[in-house]
Amino acid sequence: MCLSTVPKKIMRNIRLKIEYDGTNYKGWQVQNSSKNRTKTYNTIQQEIQTVLSRILQEDVKLIGSGRTDAGVHAKGQVANFKTKSEMPVSRIKRALNSLLPKDIVIISVKQTSPDFHSRFDAASKVYRYQILNSPHSSAFERLYQYHIPYKLDHKLMQRAATLLIGKKDFKSFQAVDKKGRSSIRTIKKLTVKRQGDIINIDIMADGFLYNMVRNIVGTLIEIGRGKFKVEDSRHILDAKDRRKAGPTAPAKGLCLIKVMYK
Amino acid sequence: MCLSTVPKKIMRNIRLKIEYDGTNYKGWQVQNSSKNRTKTYNTIQQEIQTVLSRILQEDVKLIGSGRTDAGVHAKGQVANFKTKSEMPVSRIKRALNSLLPKDIVIISVKQTSPDFHSRFDAASKVYRYQILNSPHSSAFERLYQYHIPYKLDHKLMQRAATLLIGKKDFKSFQAVDKKGRSSIRTIKKLTVKRQGDIINIDIMADGFLYNMVRNIVGTLIEIGRGKFKVEDSRHILDAKDRRKAGPTAPAKGLCLIKVMYK
Repeated sequence: MCLSTVPKKIMRNIRLKIEYDGTNYKGWQVQNSSKNRTKTYNTIQQEIQTVLSRILQEDVKLIGSGRTDAGVHAKGQVANFKTKSEMPVSRIKRALNSLLPKDIVIISVKQTSPDFHSRFDAASKVYRYQILNSPHSSAFERLYQYHIPYKLDHKLMQRAATLLIGKKDFKSFQAVDKKGRSSIRTIKKLTVKRQGDIINIDIMADGFLYNMVRNIVGTLIEIGRGKFKVEDSRHILDAKDRRKAGPTAPAKGLCLIKVMYK
Repeated sequence: MCLSTVPKKIMRNIRLKIEYDGTNYKGWQVQNSSKNRTKTYNTIQQEIQTVLSRILQEDVKLIGSGRTDAGVHAKGQVANFKTKSEMPVSRIKRALNSLLPKDIVIISVKQTSPDFHSRFDAASKVYRYQILNSPHSSAFERLYQYHIPYKLDHKLMQRAATLLIGKKDFKSFQAVDKKGRSSIRTIKKLTVKRQGDIINIDIMADGFLYNMVRNIVGTLIEIGRGKFKVEDSRHILDAKDRRKAGPTAPAKGLCLIKVMYK
């Protein structure tokens, strides 16, 4: 191999797949992008960036596929960063997992094409919201499930969910109305399935508005307990008014399962 | 019903089934049985006793089926207590679950026969030890699994485990040699099963010596990684010498699944 013809410090683009327990973090994104470098921000992105910079001995800017809120978890968050370092990806992975806190785990580290961008290239994402629908809660899943002691009718929830599938304006399910920004998204899949005491709500869309999943889940719960009717999910959608929808379901039940790329 | 012939303050015997995440506790048992009532002991028994005494407005002495060590979990711990209170069991359950910390959950509260004793009457117990045998650990199960990155041969472990089944002297697997006390126990079942990256070691016995499960697991791990041979489990047993066995596996992988009564 004729190394002399290859620029020595070529920038590699590295893609990470990340799992995290979001309980102890203020979400994915570095807070405030403040200039105050001495302050530590307890976010997933910041934790990984700091450890990466230490391993690679250079400033690393980590790009995530998107934010997750405080307390939200991930099994398949995707992020990428550019580096001049020639360290093998297997060594980066090992170093990350040995230096990161135990509630953040790097599942894979791969070199990817130079133009891959984990946010802009994301075609869709899958979230799962998990409800424990039983008289008592679980000591082990208490941080990963929303415990609802009263009986939910998951079949009604599924029927209501079906009405939300497709390319629609989800303004009613958006926490904050960002002026001028479109609130149209495409929900490709939305299922409500019960397995014993557990109700899993799986949602796949090309993108999500702020708090959209948790507001949809909060609305489906109102339907499951009989407070709203099945068709109300369509009426709420049509109203384009956040006040019509159900409450925001707690963060802890939500998990980013997968990010899909073209 | 002629109430006048029934003593008003008859003592009821109440049986609890309890689930707990042992991570934040110094085990089941109240530490030190010290007279110093002002000191709080961070144990499961103490937490439940304190809340019970508050609910029932009387001093409650909770008897567990047995101790679990610091960091050990339970899905089916059994305990009982006597009370003069006439509060319905459903109300006791509701009150307990609303006042206890979220890592302790009362699964059931039932009135039982006056002579039931959760420790003396226990015929056998089932523990599960869970190993995550994969290159990287799990952000979600990190407190409930022992992560081993090097490959374990679960079939060798199962063969070695079979040699430990039966009524035997488990002195080699006992942490502390309590003078004069018998170290003979009967292992009724001991299985090692792999499901993907997870290895479950299930053990049922009429009783367990201090650290017995964790010492057996530590020994089986040495066999699974090829450091000990399959037949060594019998040789270690025969030696009646703790120093011959493998190291004590960490507490966090261990969970008391079930207590069985005659």
